[in-house]
Amino acid sequence: MTMTLYSLCGADAARPFSPHCWKVVMALHHKGLDFEERPLAFTAIPTVEGGFSKTVPIFRDGQELISDSFRIALYLEEAYPEQPSLFGGQGGVAAARLVEGYSQHVVHGAITKIALVDIHDMLAPTDQAYFRKSREERLGRSFEEMAAGRDAAIAALPAALQPLRHMLAFHPFVGGATPLFGDYILFGALQWLRITTGAIHLPADDPVSRWFERCLELHDGVARAVA
Amino acid sequence: MTMTLYSLCGADAARPFSPHCWKVVMALHHKGLDFEERPLAFTAIPTVEGGFSKTVPIFRDGQELISDSFRIALYLEEAYPEQPSLFGGQGGVAAARLVEGYSQHVVHGAITKIALVDIHDMLAPTDQAYFRKSREERLGRSFEEMAAGRDAAIAALPAALQPLRHMLAFHPFVGGATPLFGDYILFGALQWLRITTGAIHLPADDPVSRWFERCLELHDGVARAVA
Repeated sequence: MTMTLYSLCGADAARPFSPHCWKVVMALHHKGLDFEERPLAFTAIPTVEGGFSKTVPIFRDGQELISDSFRIALYLEEAYPEQPSLFGGQGGVAAARLVEGYSQHVVHGAITKIALVDIHDMLAPTDQAYFRKSREERLGRSFEEMAAGRDAAIAALPAALQPLRHMLAFHPFVGGATPLFGDYILFGALQWLRITTGAIHLPADDPVSRWFERCLELHDGVARAVA
Repeated sequence: MTMTLYSLCGADAARPFSPHCWKVVMALHHKGLDFEERPLAFTAIPTVEGGFSKTVPIFRDGQELISDSFRIALYLEEAYPEQPSLFGGQGGVAAARLVEGYSQHVVHGAITKIALVDIHDMLAPTDQAYFRKSREERLGRSFEEMAAGRDAAIAALPAALQPLRHMLAFHPFVGGATPLFGDYILFGALQWLRITTGAIHLPADDPVSRWFERCLELHDGVARAVA
Protein backbone atom coordinates (compact mmCIF):
# COMPACT_ATOMS: atom_id res chain seq x y z
CA MET A 1 0.00 0.00 0.00
CA THR A 2 1.31 3.45 -0.88
CA MET A 3 2.24 5.74 1.97
CA THR A 4 0.61 9.18 1.90
CA LEU A 5 2.01 12.44 3.27
CA TYR A 6 -0.47 15.30 3.56
CA SER A 7 1.49 18.54 3.44
CA LEU A 8 0.79 22.25 3.04
CA CYS A 9 0.62 24.48 -0.02
CA GLY A 10 -0.61 27.84 -1.16
CA ALA A 11 -2.34 28.59 -4.45
CA ASP A 12 0.31 26.54 -6.28
CA ALA A 13 0.16 22.88 -5.20
CA ALA A 14 3.59 22.29 -6.77
CA ARG A 15 5.28 24.44 -4.09
CA PRO A 16 4.60 22.90 -0.67
CA PHE A 17 6.36 25.10 1.88
CA SER A 18 5.66 23.94 5.45
CA PRO A 19 8.89 23.49 7.46
CA HIS A 20 7.40 20.59 9.38
CA CYS A 21 6.31 18.80 6.20
CA TRP A 22 9.76 19.26 4.64
CA LYS A 23 11.29 17.52 7.66
CA VAL A 24 9.10 14.49 6.89
CA VAL A 25 9.77 14.58 3.14
CA MET A 26 13.51 14.46 3.84
CA ALA A 27 13.06 11.75 6.49
CA LEU A 28 11.07 9.56 4.09
CA HIS A 29 13.73 9.89 1.40
CA HIS A 30 16.42 9.23 4.04
CA LYS A 31 14.63 5.96 4.81
CA GLY A 32 14.35 5.20 1.09
CA LEU A 33 10.55 4.88 1.25
CA ASP A 34 8.09 5.49 -1.59
CA PHE A 35 5.26 7.86 -0.77
CA GLU A 36 2.70 10.10 -2.37
CA GLU A 37 2.66 13.73 -1.22
CA ARG A 38 -0.75 15.47 -1.20
CA PRO A 39 -0.34 19.20 -0.54
CA LEU A 40 -3.39 20.86 1.04
CA ALA A 41 -4.51 24.43 1.58
CA PHE A 42 -4.67 25.45 5.26
CA THR A 43 -8.43 25.36 5.28
CA ALA A 44 -8.55 21.94 3.59
CA ILE A 45 -6.62 20.17 6.36
CA PRO A 46 -9.73 19.33 8.43
CA THR A 47 -11.38 17.73 5.38
CA VAL A 48 -8.94 14.80 5.02
CA GLU A 49 -8.74 11.57 6.98
CA GLY A 50 -11.97 12.37 8.84
CA GLY A 51 -10.58 15.55 10.41
CA PHE A 52 -7.80 13.54 12.11
CA SER A 53 -5.58 16.58 12.76
CA LYS A 54 -5.85 20.36 12.54
CA THR A 55 -2.26 20.58 11.34
CA VAL A 56 -0.02 18.93 8.77
CA PRO A 57 2.07 16.86 8.33
CA ILE A 58 -0.37 13.96 8.49
CA PHE A 59 1.12 10.63 7.47
CA ARG A 60 -0.72 7.44 6.51
CA ASP A 61 1.12 4.13 6.27
CA GLY A 62 -1.43 1.35 5.77
CA GLN A 63 -3.54 1.32 8.93
CA GLU A 64 -1.26 3.76 10.75
CA LEU A 65 -2.23 7.43 10.83
CA ILE A 66 0.15 9.89 12.52
CA SER A 67 0.45 13.66 12.82
CA ASP A 68 3.34 15.86 14.05
CA SER A 69 6.67 15.72 12.25
CA PHE A 70 8.71 14.44 15.17
CA ARG A 71 6.23 11.66 15.96
CA ILE A 72 6.25 10.65 12.29
CA ALA A 73 10.07 10.46 12.38
CA LEU A 74 9.92 8.30 15.53
CA TYR A 75 7.37 6.05 13.82
CA LEU A 76 9.58 5.67 10.73
CA GLU A 77 12.59 4.85 12.89
CA GLU A 78 10.68 2.11 14.71
CA ALA A 79 8.74 0.73 11.73
CA TYR A 80 11.72 0.68 9.32
CA PRO A 81 14.73 -0.16 11.51
CA GLU A 82 16.63 -1.80 8.63
CA GLN A 83 16.75 1.48 6.71
CA PRO A 84 19.31 4.22 7.56
CA SER A 85 18.75 5.60 11.04
CA LEU A 86 17.25 9.08 11.53
CA PHE A 87 18.61 9.47 15.08
CA GLY A 88 21.86 7.49 15.28
CA GLY A 89 20.74 5.62 18.36
CA GLN A 90 18.43 6.27 21.31
CA GLY A 91 20.64 9.04 22.74
CA GLY A 92 20.14 10.96 19.51
CA VAL A 93 16.38 11.25 20.00
CA ALA A 94 16.59 13.65 22.94
CA ALA A 95 19.34 15.63 21.22
CA ALA A 96 17.07 15.99 18.17
CA ARG A 97 14.33 17.31 20.48
CA LEU A 98 16.74 20.00 21.65
CA VAL A 99 17.45 20.85 18.01
CA GLU A 100 13.68 21.07 17.51
CA GLY A 101 13.43 23.41 20.50
CA TYR A 102 16.20 25.61 19.09
CA SER A 103 14.63 25.61 15.63
CA GLN A 104 11.12 26.42 16.77
CA HIS A 105 11.95 28.89 19.54
CA VAL A 106 14.90 30.74 17.98
CA VAL A 107 15.06 30.14 14.22
CA HIS A 108 11.34 30.06 13.37
CA GLY A 109 10.73 33.41 15.05
CA ALA A 110 13.54 34.99 13.01
CA ILE A 111 12.14 33.51 9.79
CA THR A 112 8.53 34.44 10.51
CA LYS A 113 9.54 38.09 10.79
CA ILE A 114 10.99 37.90 7.26
CA ALA A 115 8.53 35.64 5.46
CA LEU A 116 5.11 36.31 6.92
CA VAL A 117 3.77 38.61 4.24
CA ASP A 118 5.34 36.46 1.47
CA ILE A 119 3.54 33.42 2.88
CA HIS A 120 0.26 35.30 2.91
CA ASP A 121 0.74 36.39 -0.70
CA MET A 122 1.28 32.84 -1.98
CA LEU A 123 -1.83 31.42 -0.32
CA ALA A 124 -5.06 30.70 -2.12
CA PRO A 125 -7.62 33.47 -1.56
CA THR A 126 -9.72 31.22 0.68
CA ASP A 127 -6.75 30.82 3.04
CA GLN A 128 -5.55 34.40 3.13
CA ALA A 129 -8.22 35.74 5.49
CA TYR A 130 -7.75 32.84 7.91
CA PHE A 131 -3.96 33.19 7.83
CA ARG A 132 -3.90 36.94 8.37
CA LYS A 133 -6.30 36.88 11.29
CA SER A 134 -4.66 33.94 13.09
CA ARG A 135 -1.11 35.25 12.63
CA GLU A 136 -1.87 38.82 13.63
CA GLU A 137 -3.48 37.47 16.81
CA ARG A 138 -0.56 35.15 17.54
CA LEU A 139 2.14 37.75 16.91
CA GLY A 140 0.30 40.74 18.31
CA ARG A 141 1.36 42.82 15.31
CA SER A 142 -0.30 43.83 12.05
CA PHE A 143 1.01 42.64 8.69
CA GLU A 144 1.87 46.25 7.89
CA GLU A 145 4.11 46.43 10.98
CA MET A 146 5.74 43.10 10.04
CA ALA A 147 6.42 44.32 6.50
CA ALA A 148 8.04 47.51 7.83
CA GLY A 149 10.43 45.42 9.96
CA ARG A 150 11.47 43.02 7.20
CA ASP A 151 14.92 44.50 6.49
CA ALA A 152 15.79 44.48 10.18
CA ALA A 153 14.58 40.88 10.40
CA ILE A 154 16.89 39.85 7.54
CA ALA A 155 19.78 41.60 9.29
CA ALA A 156 19.00 39.65 12.49
CA LEU A 157 18.85 36.20 10.86
CA PRO A 158 22.60 35.38 10.96
CA ALA A 159 22.70 35.78 14.76
CA ALA A 160 19.80 33.34 15.21
CA LEU A 161 21.80 30.78 13.23
CA GLN A 162 25.03 31.22 15.21
CA PRO A 163 24.56 27.95 17.20
CA LEU A 164 24.31 26.00 13.92
CA ARG A 165 27.27 27.93 12.42
CA HIS A 166 29.33 27.11 15.52
CA MET A 167 28.69 23.38 15.00
CA LEU A 168 29.49 23.60 11.28
CA ALA A 169 33.05 24.70 12.12
CA PHE A 170 33.63 21.11 13.28
CA HIS A 171 31.26 18.84 11.30
CA PRO A 172 29.52 18.93 7.91
CA PHE A 173 26.11 17.89 9.34
CA VAL A 174 24.26 17.99 12.66
CA GLY A 175 24.41 14.21 12.36
CA GLY A 176 28.22 14.35 11.99
CA ALA A 177 29.66 13.01 8.74
CA THR A 178 26.18 12.38 7.31
CA PRO A 179 22.77 13.95 7.96
CA LEU A 180 20.27 12.86 10.61
CA PHE A 181 16.81 14.12 11.52
CA GLY A 182 18.39 17.08 13.37
CA ASP A 183 19.62 18.34 9.99
CA TYR A 184 16.18 17.98 8.47
CA ILE A 185 14.64 19.94 11.35
CA LEU A 186 16.84 22.97 10.65
CA PHE A 187 16.79 22.41 6.90
CA GLY A 188 12.98 22.51 6.99
CA ALA A 189 13.10 25.96 8.54
CA LEU A 190 15.41 27.41 5.87
CA GLN A 191 13.61 25.57 3.04
CA TRP A 192 10.41 27.24 4.25
CA LEU A 193 12.21 30.61 4.00
CA ARG A 194 13.62 29.75 0.56
CA ILE A 195 10.32 28.65 -0.99
CA THR A 196 8.23 31.46 0.46
CA THR A 197 10.67 34.33 -0.19
CA GLY A 198 12.90 32.98 -2.98
CA ALA A 199 16.13 33.06 -0.93
CA ILE A 200 17.61 32.23 2.47
CA HIS A 201 19.03 35.77 2.78
CA LEU A 202 22.51 34.67 3.90
CA PRO A 203 25.87 35.29 2.20
CA ALA A 204 26.90 32.43 -0.11
CA ASP A 205 30.11 31.89 1.87
CA ASP A 206 28.28 31.60 5.21
CA PRO A 207 28.88 28.04 6.54
CA VAL A 208 25.11 27.82 7.00
CA SER A 209 24.60 28.54 3.28
CA ARG A 210 27.12 25.86 2.36
CA TRP A 211 25.41 23.33 4.67
CA PHE A 212 22.02 24.28 3.19
CA GLU A 213 23.41 23.64 -0.32
CA ARG A 214 24.64 20.22 0.83
CA CYS A 215 21.12 19.46 2.07
CA LEU A 216 19.62 20.57 -1.25
CA GLU A 217 21.85 17.98 -2.96
CA LEU A 218 20.64 15.12 -0.75
CA HIS A 219 18.32 12.40 -2.05
CA ASP A 220 18.80 13.27 -5.72
CA GLY A 221 18.10 16.95 -5.13
CA VAL A 222 14.45 16.43 -4.15
CA ALA A 223 14.39 19.64 -2.12
CA ARG A 224 16.10 21.76 -4.78
CA ALA A 225 13.44 20.73 -7.31
CA VAL A 226 10.86 22.86 -5.48
CA ALA A 227 11.55 26.58 -5.66
CA MET B 1 49.80 9.13 37.80
CA THR B 2 47.11 11.47 39.09
CA MET B 3 45.18 13.46 36.52
CA THR B 4 45.11 17.22 37.07
CA LEU B 5 42.38 19.66 36.10
CA TYR B 6 43.32 23.34 36.25
CA SER B 7 40.12 25.33 36.75
CA LEU B 8 39.13 28.89 37.65
CA CYS B 9 38.37 30.53 40.99
CA GLY B 10 38.02 33.92 42.60
CA ALA B 11 39.34 34.94 46.01
CA ASP B 12 37.91 31.69 47.47
CA ALA B 13 39.65 28.66 45.93
CA ALA B 14 36.89 26.40 47.28
CA ARG B 15 34.35 27.90 44.85
CA PRO B 16 35.54 27.29 41.28
CA PHE B 17 32.91 28.79 38.98
CA SER B 18 33.94 28.52 35.31
CA PRO B 19 31.18 26.98 33.16
CA HIS B 20 33.75 25.30 30.93
CA CYS B 21 35.62 23.79 33.88
CA TRP B 22 32.37 22.46 35.38
CA LYS B 23 31.69 20.63 32.11
CA VAL B 24 35.01 18.82 32.55
CA VAL B 25 34.48 18.11 36.27
CA MET B 26 31.17 16.44 35.42
CA ALA B 27 32.69 14.57 32.46
CA LEU B 28 35.53 13.21 34.63
CA HIS B 29 33.06 11.96 37.25
CA HIS B 30 30.87 10.54 34.44
CA LYS B 31 33.91 8.52 33.33
CA GLY B 32 34.61 7.49 36.92
CA LEU B 33 38.14 8.92 36.84
CA ASP B 34 40.15 10.18 39.83
CA PHE B 35 41.63 13.63 39.41
CA GLU B 36 42.98 16.55 41.36
CA GLU B 37 41.37 19.96 40.70
CA ARG B 38 43.62 23.00 41.01
CA PRO B 39 41.59 26.22 40.84
CA LEU B 40 43.54 29.24 39.58
CA ALA B 41 42.95 32.98 39.57
CA PHE B 42 42.51 34.42 36.03
CA THR B 43 45.94 36.04 36.15
CA ALA B 44 47.63 32.82 37.37
CA ILE B 45 46.59 30.74 34.32
CA PRO B 46 49.70 31.66 32.25
CA THR B 47 51.97 30.57 35.13
CA VAL B 48 51.10 26.84 35.03
CA GLU B 49 52.30 24.14 32.63
CA GLY B 50 54.77 26.52 31.03
CA GLY B 51 52.08 28.92 29.85
CA PHE B 52 50.43 26.16 27.79
CA SER B 53 47.07 27.95 27.49
CA LYS B 54 45.65 31.40 28.21
CA THR B 55 42.36 29.85 29.30
CA VAL B 56 41.17 27.03 31.56
CA PRO B 57 40.23 24.23 31.67
CA ILE B 58 43.68 22.74 31.20
CA PHE B 59 43.86 19.00 31.75
CA ARG B 60 46.94 16.86 32.33
CA ASP B 61 46.76 13.07 32.08
CA GLY B 62 50.31 11.70 32.29
CA GLN B 63 52.12 13.00 29.22
CA GLU B 64 48.92 14.38 27.66
CA LEU B 65 48.16 18.08 28.09
CA ILE B 66 44.90 19.42 26.65
CA SER B 67 42.95 22.68 26.84
CA ASP B 68 39.36 23.51 25.82
CA SER B 69 36.47 21.68 27.49
CA PHE B 70 35.14 20.00 24.34
CA ARG B 71 38.59 18.76 23.28
CA ILE B 72 39.11 17.37 26.77
CA ALA B 73 35.78 15.52 26.56
CA LEU B 74 36.76 14.09 23.15
CA TYR B 75 40.09 12.99 24.63
CA LEU B 76 38.38 11.27 27.57
CA GLU B 77 35.98 9.48 25.23
CA GLU B 78 38.86 8.15 23.14
CA ALA B 79 41.30 7.40 25.97
CA TYR B 80 38.73 5.71 28.24
CA PRO B 81 36.32 3.93 25.88
CA GLU B 82 35.43 1.25 28.46
CA GLN B 83 33.94 3.84 30.80
CA PRO B 84 30.41 5.26 30.24
CA SER B 85 30.18 7.20 26.98
CA LEU B 86 29.97 11.01 27.00
CA PHE B 87 28.47 11.20 23.49
CA GLY B 88 26.44 8.05 22.92
CA GLY B 89 28.17 7.26 19.65
CA GLN B 90 29.86 9.24 16.90
CA GLY B 91 26.61 10.92 15.79
CA GLY B 92 26.31 12.42 19.25
CA VAL B 93 29.54 14.42 18.90
CA ALA B 94 28.19 16.83 16.29
CA ALA B 95 24.90 17.16 18.18
CA ALA B 96 26.87 18.09 21.31
CA ARG B 97 28.68 20.77 19.27
CA LEU B 98 25.27 22.23 18.38
CA VAL B 99 24.37 22.20 22.09
CA GLU B 100 27.68 24.00 22.74
CA GLY B 101 26.76 26.57 20.09
CA TYR B 102 23.36 27.12 21.69
CA SER B 103 24.86 27.36 25.17
CA GLN B 104 27.61 29.80 24.24
CA HIS B 105 25.69 31.97 21.80
CA VAL B 106 22.28 32.10 23.49
CA VAL B 107 22.51 31.01 27.13
CA HIS B 108 25.90 32.47 28.07
CA GLY B 109 24.91 35.92 26.87
CA ALA B 110 21.77 35.83 29.01
CA ILE B 111 23.78 34.71 32.06
CA THR B 112 26.57 37.23 31.58
CA LYS B 113 24.03 40.05 31.74
CA ILE B 114 22.93 38.79 35.16
CA ALA B 115 26.18 37.63 36.73
CA LEU B 116 28.92 39.94 35.48
CA VAL B 117 29.15 42.22 38.49
CA ASP B 118 28.80 39.26 40.89
CA ILE B 119 31.72 37.55 39.16
CA HIS B 120 33.81 40.69 39.49
CA ASP B 121 33.00 40.97 43.19
CA MET B 122 34.12 37.41 43.99
CA LEU B 123 37.49 37.75 42.25
CA ALA B 124 40.77 38.31 44.05
CA PRO B 125 41.81 42.00 43.92
CA THR B 126 44.63 41.22 41.49
CA ASP B 127 42.09 39.85 39.01
CA GLN B 128 39.41 42.50 39.33
CA ALA B 129 41.14 45.17 37.26
CA TYR B 130 41.95 42.71 34.45
CA PHE B 131 38.40 41.33 34.46
CA ARG B 132 36.67 44.70 34.41
CA LYS B 133 38.78 46.09 31.59
CA SER B 134 38.57 42.98 29.38
CA ARG B 135 34.81 42.50 29.88
CA GLU B 136 33.89 46.14 29.36
CA GLU B 137 35.84 46.07 26.10
CA ARG B 138 34.22 42.81 24.98
CA LEU B 139 30.65 43.84 25.85
CA GLY B 140 30.94 47.50 24.91
CA ARG B 141 29.15 48.49 28.12
CA SER B 142 30.30 49.69 31.55
CA PHE B 143 29.74 47.61 34.68
CA GLU B 144 27.41 50.33 35.92
CA GLU B 145 25.22 49.90 32.81
CA MET B 146 25.26 46.11 33.25
CA ALA B 147 24.20 46.43 36.91
CA ALA B 148 21.30 48.69 35.94
CA GLY B 149 20.02 46.08 33.49
CA ARG B 150 20.24 43.12 35.90
CA ASP B 151 16.50 42.79 36.68
CA ALA B 152 15.62 42.88 32.98
CA ALA B 153 18.31 40.25 32.33
CA ILE B 154 16.78 37.94 34.96
CA ALA B 155 13.36 38.43 33.37
CA ALA B 156 14.81 37.47 29.97
CA LEU B 157 16.53 34.27 31.14
CA PRO B 158 13.53 31.89 30.82
CA ALA B 159 13.15 32.71 27.11
CA ALA B 160 16.82 31.88 26.43
CA LEU B 161 16.22 28.46 27.99
CA GLN B 162 13.08 27.67 25.97
CA PRO B 163 14.89 25.24 23.61
CA LEU B 164 16.07 23.18 26.61
CA ARG B 165 12.63 23.39 28.24
CA HIS B 166 11.03 22.15 25.01
CA MET B 167 13.27 19.06 25.06
CA LEU B 168 12.57 18.42 28.74
CA ALA B 169 8.87 17.92 27.96
CA PHE B 170 9.91 14.64 26.33
CA HIS B 171 13.11 13.41 28.04
CA PRO B 172 14.74 13.82 31.48
CA PHE B 173 18.20 14.60 30.05
CA VAL B 174 19.71 15.95 26.81
CA GLY B 175 21.26 12.48 26.61
CA GLY B 176 17.81 10.87 26.87
CA ALA B 177 17.21 8.61 29.89
CA THR B 178 20.63 9.42 31.34
CA PRO B 179 22.99 12.41 30.99
CA LEU B 180 25.62 12.89 28.30
CA PHE B 181 28.13 15.67 27.66
CA GLY B 182 25.34 17.82 26.17
CA ASP B 183 23.78 17.96 29.64
CA TYR B 184 27.08 18.97 31.20
CA ILE B 185 27.50 21.77 28.66
CA LEU B 186 24.22 23.39 29.68
CA PHE B 187 24.62 22.43 33.33
CA GLY B 188 27.98 24.21 33.38
CA ALA B 189 26.29 27.43 32.28
CA LEU B 190 23.67 27.34 35.04
CA GLN B 191 26.17 26.14 37.67
CA TRP B 192 28.26 29.21 36.78
CA LEU B 193 25.16 31.35 37.41
CA ARG B 194 24.39 29.51 40.67
CA ILE B 195 27.89 29.81 42.16
CA THR B 196 28.46 33.42 41.15
CA THR B 197 25.02 34.80 42.10
CA GLY B 198 23.70 32.24 44.61
CA ALA B 199 20.72 31.14 42.50
CA ILE B 200 19.66 30.20 38.98
CA HIS B 201 16.81 32.75 39.09
CA LEU B 202 14.14 30.38 37.72
CA PRO B 203 10.90 29.20 39.39
CA ALA B 204 11.33 25.92 41.27
CA ASP B 205 8.64 24.27 39.14
CA ASP B 206 10.31 25.25 35.84
CA PRO B 207 11.30 22.01 34.06
CA VAL B 208 14.76 23.55 33.67
CA SER B 209 15.02 23.92 37.46
CA ARG B 210 13.99 20.30 37.96
CA TRP B 211 16.56 19.12 35.39
CA PHE B 212 19.21 21.27 37.09
CA GLU B 213 18.36 19.64 40.44
CA ARG B 214 18.75 16.22 38.81
CA CYS B 215 22.20 17.27 37.58
CA LEU B 216 23.16 18.48 41.08
CA GLU B 217 22.36 14.97 42.37
CA LEU B 218 24.63 13.25 39.85
CA HIS B 219 27.97 11.70 40.85
CA ASP B 220 27.25 11.78 44.60
CA GLY B 221 26.23 15.43 44.49
CA VAL B 222 29.68 16.72 43.58
CA ALA B 223 28.26 19.87 41.98
CA ARG B 224 25.88 20.64 44.85
CA ALA B 225 28.79 20.58 47.29
CA VAL B 226 30.09 23.86 45.84
CA ALA B 227 27.83 26.83 46.49
